[in-house]
Amino acid sequence: MTKQSDKDSSKNSKSKEGLTVKKSENFSEWYSQIIEKAEIVDLRLGIKGFVIIRPWGTLIIERLYDMFEKELQNKGHLPVIMPSVIPESNLKKEESHIQGFAPEVFWLETDKEGKNGKEERLALRPTSETVFTPMFALWVRSHRDLPLKLYQRGSVFRYDTKSTRPLVRGREFYWIECHDAFATKKEAEAQVQEDIDTTRKILYEKFGIPFLPIRRPSWDKFAGAEYTIGSDVLMPDGKLIQQPSTHFMGQRFSKAFDAKFTTKEGKEEYLYTTAYGPAVSRILVSVISTHGDDKGLVLPFEIAPVQAVVIPIYTVKNKSKILKYAGEIMKKLEANGVRTKLDSDENSTPGWKFHEWELKGVPFRIEIGEKELKGKKFTLFTRDTGVKTTAPLGKFGYIKKLGEAYDKRLKTRADNNMKGKTVSCKTKEDIRKILKEGKIARVNFCSTEKKGEKCAEYVEKEIGAEVRGTLADRNEKPFGKCIICNTSANVVVYIAKSY
Amino acid sequence: MTKQSDKDSSKNSKSKEGLTVKKSENFSEWYSQIIEKAEIVDLRLGIKGFVIIRPWGTLIIERLYDMFEKELQNKGHLPVIMPSVIPESNLKKEESHIQGFAPEVFWLETDKEGKNGKEERLALRPTSETVFTPMFALWVRSHRDLPLKLYQRGSVFRYDTKSTRPLVRGREFYWIECHDAFATKKEAEAQVQEDIDTTRKILYEKFGIPFLPIRRPSWDKFAGAEYTIGSDVLMPDGKLIQQPSTHFMGQRFSKAFDAKFTTKEGKEEYLYTTAYGPAVSRILVSVISTHGDDKGLVLPFEIAPVQAVVIPIYTVKNKSKILKYAGEIMKKLEANGVRTKLDSDENSTPGWKFHEWELKGVPFRIEIGEKELKGKKFTLFTRDTGVKTTAPLGKFGYIKKLGEAYDKRLKTRADNNMKGKTVSCKTKEDIRKILKEGKIARVNFCSTEKKGEKCAEYVEKEIGAEVRGTLADRNEKPFGKCIICNTSANVVVYIAKSY
Repeated sequence: MTKQSDKDSSKNSKSKEGLTVKKSENFSEWYSQIIEKAEIVDLRLGIKGFVIIRPWGTLIIERLYDMFEKELQNKGHLPVIMPSVIPESNLKKEESHIQGFAPEVFWLETDKEGKNGKEERLALRPTSETVFTPMFALWVRSHRDLPLKLYQRGSVFRYDTKSTRPLVRGREFYWIECHDAFATKKEAEAQVQEDIDTTRKILYEKFGIPFLPIRRPSWDKFAGAEYTIGSDVLMPDGKLIQQPSTHFMGQRFSKAFDAKFTTKEGKEEYLYTTAYGPAVSRILVSVISTHGDDKGLVLPFEIAPVQAVVIPIYTVKNKSKILKYAGEIMKKLEANGVRTKLDSDENSTPGWKFHEWELKGVPFRIEIGEKELKGKKFTLFTRDTGVKTTAPLGKFGYIKKLGEAYDKRLKTRADNNMKGKTVSCKTKEDIRKILKEGKIARVNFCSTEKKGEKCAEYVEKEIGAEVRGTLADRNEKPFGKCIICNTSANVVVYIAKSY
Repeated sequence: MTKQSDKDSSKNSKSKEGLTVKKSENFSEWYSQIIEKAEIVDLRLGIKGFVIIRPWGTLIIERLYDMFEKELQNKGHLPVIMPSVIPESNLKKEESHIQGFAPEVFWLETDKEGKNGKEERLALRPTSETVFTPMFALWVRSHRDLPLKLYQRGSVFRYDTKSTRPLVRGREFYWIECHDAFATKKEAEAQVQEDIDTTRKILYEKFGIPFLPIRRPSWDKFAGAEYTIGSDVLMPDGKLIQQPSTHFMGQRFSKAFDAKFTTKEGKEEYLYTTAYGPAVSRILVSVISTHGDDKGLVLPFEIAPVQAVVIPIYTVKNKSKILKYAGEIMKKLEANGVRTKLDSDENSTPGWKFHEWELKGVPFRIEIGEKELKGKKFTLFTRDTGVKTTAPLGKFGYIKKLGEAYDKRLKTRADNNMKGKTVSCKTKEDIRKILKEGKIARVNFCSTEKKGEKCAEYVEKEIGAEVRGTLADRNEKPFGKCIICNTSANVVVYIAKSY
């Protein structure tokens, strides 16, 4: 890549073009183009698995953080800040945990000169159970200290050697991790359900992204968990991407870290713990992929850093009047709680600005020219429908209402798109056919415990897909024999390709 | 420390005592106690230089972040997210930068098995000039793209081998780093002044923490900067702590990274860059130290996670009525925009709650008992003055006004405390005496350039203090000869002990 073409994404570059592929025709290339051209990320620092998130992407991510944090705080979580590093001895304390994570841990160099020679080897945190649990042991003394529900926002590091993909799979990613402690198994399992509810409230209700809550097979759960429930979102290319997952740890970590409490009856008992991890950088992938179109991003009104952009259209003659009018309109919108930007950049034409803000997914564009000034009105363009209307001045409060309707439309469109995407299959051939159509296969399966692992391997090797697990919010009865081994089926599982 | 005593800081522990030393008598011990007992940090994970920031501390830090970020955005900065790691070749590009930082860089282990053998060695970022500047080279093409003002929030890592102290000096700390690029030297230097203004607006105006903006001697500037201006805050023990510093880099980094732009006249020119870094975890130290008293924290109203705590005082008989009344009052306060907590914990006495929330520095306590219920009023305790008053119901809006007056009082008290703390000295003996009194010496000095380094070494070795530099907001004329070498003095410097 030459220096000159590198410069093409600079903010005022006039040579930047729109998307050159259709989302429906080549999703992978569409995604690569949109994250670069809408200035979400920049990959040119060139460190494998690490990306730069540009201002437009960061502002969206800050909104995602805010919304999750608010919901978590409403549900009784408090924020903490834990170190980014974990001592080796902590990381290795829970056996299945370290077995799972060992291959992808980044370690810090120990001091070669020996000036700190006696200090313990440190890892960059891949996840933080092994620092939260020993602190639970110190912070919780009796049942009166429970439940204890904490979260932290920050990044984690996984030395993934598989192919990385910007925001989808990286060596550093940005998330919230919740770690909660309870007196009883029942309460801990209720927390897992509450976590799914949080995903539903934010990911689905607010961002309009439908998902399947899927209980993972035993071979695919979080390392150290008793069970894991993931949220599977279907991407336009027919692959599933895992969004927030929640883990019931039982007493595994509390036993490893001797984290006990005194019950009402005065007995010593181990804590029950859970973990929940919405990765905001990855959720951004689903926001982009679910709602984006061939012109660029389509950001939900709730998330958009700019909800309405005001674009003045003027000649040399009426410039000052138009700019003044546009400025007034911007102020009125802001006073009505709408995040607004007045784009009065003199180096761009209105047409260029239309293109730029459509690419960036701003929900509403307000055009102000001579006609609007004279008629005391404004022209309103809506990003998702592409419809232009005019409206009289003074009714700015209704932009928020329009925003709500807009978000509802995005959600409905996404829901409709999911209809018919899950198909019950009775033969392996059916599965292959359904997967080719970019859909999810629903099949009878022998078991999601150890016993079923062989059949899952068959699915992976012979069909090139993954047994994602069973629905977590419903108990589905199998309707025949295992589609792979033909022995009696215990569960209904969902099979799809995945990221 | 036994397990039992470890448990003493659990949230419901009734055995937790207040501070056992006076701030004026043993500041160091007072600080150690307050950060633990007010549940700001927990050191018991035991990793040298890394602390856990508990919910109460994290909620304050989130407020600090919010206030700085808002101010920075108002001043035209946009947020970005850069990787936490920096490739070795980037870090080593600007010579004086790496010379300064090399001793305190944490490196990641390179992959021993060679599966990623060809990947470049990575450092944990100690600061991010060496990733921002190469991106400026890509993002800025012409003068129309300037200025470009960016910031990121996050933590940085320094393998400090000196003694660490919680939140004061650590191996991981939490800050905002701003990196700005300009077309001209003049604009870049104006940015440095704007950064000082940001410090003043937030640190001083909002948090009531007086500081001296000090231009550092050449031997004490940021590694890679042309000059550095720090904000020195006097701690109760007479030592200075550096708060936000701002650096004028000139074209040093842009030359190292070939970051050019096209001027209006069509010429190629190197960018001028600046950096500004408010460390929120360290600012918390000054908030605690400046305003805290012998009963605990005294949090500015603007910062307090809980601005008013409502404490119901009831008997078995009137419990439900009192709780209902207290709940109504809490709701009214919240409706008036006051961050409020109703502490209805049944396992604590009102007296214990008074103690707890005073220790945590909550500005206002509202007591609700039979008397208040009958009289349709409430009792209001103010943290900084210790005064109790009663007020009739219905006027909750004025709590915000009281909060403003409260913050003003904290600021005035801090200002008064600084009066007479800077003393002009004419002899070395004077300096020693002034330092012993916990004050700052103002003296004639030969030079803050290379020439004066010997005299500064003398001050360090023989007087045990530091030449901090010259006032950055005033041009002070020296009033005699250099107090150390007795040659002609070029500058007036400030000498003090420091953290």
